[in-house]
Amino acid sequence: MPIPEHEFDYIAWIRQQAARHSRVPVGIGDDAAVVAFPPPGNCLVTVDMLMEGVDFLIPPATPLEVGRKSLAVNLSDIAAMAGRPVACVTSVALPRRGGLELGRGLFEGLYRLADEFDVALAGGDTNTWDGPLVISITLLGEPTGTGPVLRSGARAGDWIMATGSFGGSLAGRHLDFTPRVREAQALHQAAALHAMIDVSDGLAADLGHVLEESHMGAILDEQALPISAAAMSADDERSPLEHALGDGEDFELLFTVSPEDGSRILAHPPCATPLAHIGEVVRGSGCHLRTRDGKLESLSGLGWKHGFE
Amino acid sequence: MPIPEHEFDYIAWIRQQAARHSRVPVGIGDDAAVVAFPPPGNCLVTVDMLMEGVDFLIPPATPLEVGRKSLAVNLSDIAAMAGRPVACVTSVALPRRGGLELGRGLFEGLYRLADEFDVALAGGDTNTWDGPLVISITLLGEPTGTGPVLRSGARAGDWIMATGSFGGSLAGRHLDFTPRVREAQALHQAAALHAMIDVSDGLAADLGHVLEESHMGAILDEQALPISAAAMSADDERSPLEHALGDGEDFELLFTVSPEDGSRILAHPPCATPLAHIGEVVRGSGCHLRTRDGKLESLSGLGWKHGFE
Repeated sequence: MPIPEHEFDYIAWIRQQAARHSRVPVGIGDDAAVVAFPPPGNCLVTVDMLMEGVDFLIPPATPLEVGRKSLAVNLSDIAAMAGRPVACVTSVALPRRGGLELGRGLFEGLYRLADEFDVALAGGDTNTWDGPLVISITLLGEPTGTGPVLRSGARAGDWIMATGSFGGSLAGRHLDFTPRVREAQALHQAAALHAMIDVSDGLAADLGHVLEESHMGAILDEQALPISAAAMSADDERSPLEHALGDGEDFELLFTVSPEDGSRILAHPPCATPLAHIGEVVRGSGCHLRTRDGKLESLSGLGWKHGFE
Repeated sequence: MPIPEHEFDYIAWIRQQAARHSRVPVGIGDDAAVVAFPPPGNCLVTVDMLMEGVDFLIPPATPLEVGRKSLAVNLSDIAAMAGRPVACVTSVALPRRGGLELGRGLFEGLYRLADEFDVALAGGDTNTWDGPLVISITLLGEPTGTGPVLRSGARAGDWIMATGSFGGSLAGRHLDFTPRVREAQALHQAAALHAMIDVSDGLAADLGHVLEESHMGAILDEQALPISAAAMSADDERSPLEHALGDGEDFELLFTVSPEDGSRILAHPPCATPLAHIGEVVRGSGCHLRTRDGKLESLSGLGWKHGFE
C-alpha cells in the first residue's frame, strides 16, 4: 500500500497493518469495535493521555518511543490489577504539519508493543489540528486468577513489596520501560496479593494511594529501598533517596502480601525481575520512613502533585 | 465537599458525584475499572476525541455543552451498532488557567447525559497543560437483539432509510443533538437492519462508508431527502441540498433494510423520530443522486475530507 497522504488513507493503512485478533470479531472500520469477554465477562478498562510538552518532547523522544510509551503506561495499569491486556483503542490529535510521518511512527511504536503483549488494536479516532501532539489510549483487559487486585486490600502486618528499582526514570527509562504485566500475573499466581498499584506518581505518593484506599498506614525501610542507578547518579540537589521516593514514572509494581507469602516469594521468586521487601503496613494513617539510624520520618508531601492555577 | 482546588481533589469530587452503577463493581479510584459484560460477553467499544478550535469554541459553546457533546458523539456510535451503552472512561487535557471551572462544567454536561442514558462513569485521566482543551471519551456498550449492526451488510435492492433530517448542524444542533440510541434499538427490534451508520462526516460520505464496506452502490432520491430547517435557511452560496448531503455532524441514523421491512416500519414506525425512505442500494459502486427531473448525478467528492499538510 502506498504511503498514506490523507487521514482516511492513514486509517486504511493502520487497518491493514493491524492484524486480526481472535478476541476482536469486529475491529477497525465500523462505528464501534466488538471485543469478546468470555464468562464471567469482567472487562478491565483504563485510559491514559500523553501530551507533547508535558509527558514528552519530540525530539529527544522519537515518535516510535511516544507511541510505545502511550500503550506501555496503560499496560502498567492493567498489570497493577494483575490483569491480562486484551485490546486497545486510540485517539490522537496530530499536528497538521508533519502529522502523517508522526502518525506512522506513533503507530509503529504502539503496534510493536501491542504485538509483544498480544493486544489487539480494535479502533481509534484520528484527528489533525494546529496544536501539539496528544495521544490517548484506552486499554481493555481481563482479570486473571482469583480476580483483580485492588488498591484497597492492604492489611495491618502486610509486607510492602516492590519490583525493580526506583527513581530517575525521567533520565530515560520512562521511554522504554517494560510494563510489569507478566510479573504481576506470576506474582498473582504465586501469592495472595492483598493490594497492588503501579508506581507512576512516585513511590511515596502511590503507596499513599494504597494506604488511603485501605485505611492503613505504613513504615518504609530506607535500607531496603531499591534505588535505581539513574537515581544514584543524578547530579542535582536531591539525594538518591529523595529521587527514589519522589520521582514519578518508575512503572514498577508496589504490592502488599502476608509475611508468609512475602518470605516465600523472596525465597522462590516467580519472576526474573528483582523483588524487594521494603516495609510494612501498620494500623493508622500516613506513611513513615525508618531511616538507617532507626528514626521514623513522615513521608507526607513527597510525590508529584498535579496542579491548577 | 468543598470546591476542588487541585487535580487530586477534582478527581475525588468527580468520584463522589459519579453514582455507583450495577455494571461497574470497581469504578473510579483504582488503576483500572471493572465493567461487567454478562454472557455472551461481547463488548462494543468506541472512542472520540474533541479538540478546542476544531470541534468547538468556548464561547460560544459552554463547558456544559462540550462535556455533553463529547459523550453524545460516542453514544451516536454505539447507536449505529444498535447497541446499549454501558460505561465510559474519559481523558482530558485542561488548560491550566481556568481549568478547574472548565473541568466542572465539562463533567456536569457529561454526567447529565450519562445519567439520561444510564451510562456509568467508570474512570478517567485528568491532565492540565498550557494548550487548548482536549477531551477524549471511550464508551463501552453491548449488542442488543440479534447482535451488532455493521456497515458491511447492505444488499442490492435494500431501501436506504434515515432518521430525522440533514444539513446545517453546525448552526447549533451539533451541540445539543440527542443521540439516536433508543431509536436504533427500537428499529433493530422492529426490522432486520442490514447495515447502519451514524452520520457524522455527512450523509453522502457516510453512505459512502456503508457502500464501500458492503461492496455496493446506491441511488439517493433528491425528492425524498429530509432537509433540516437549518439547511433550508442557510444563507450562503451552497444550496439546501448541498448542505443536507455534505454537512457533517447530523448524528442521524442511516440504515438499509429489505423493501418489505422498510414499508412496514414506515407504516408502523417503532419510534417517534421521523423516518424516511431516501434511496436504494444497487449492485456496483459509488453513489448517485436521482434529481427532481429524473437525471442521475454522481455524488463522489461530497462530504468532509480530513487532511494533512
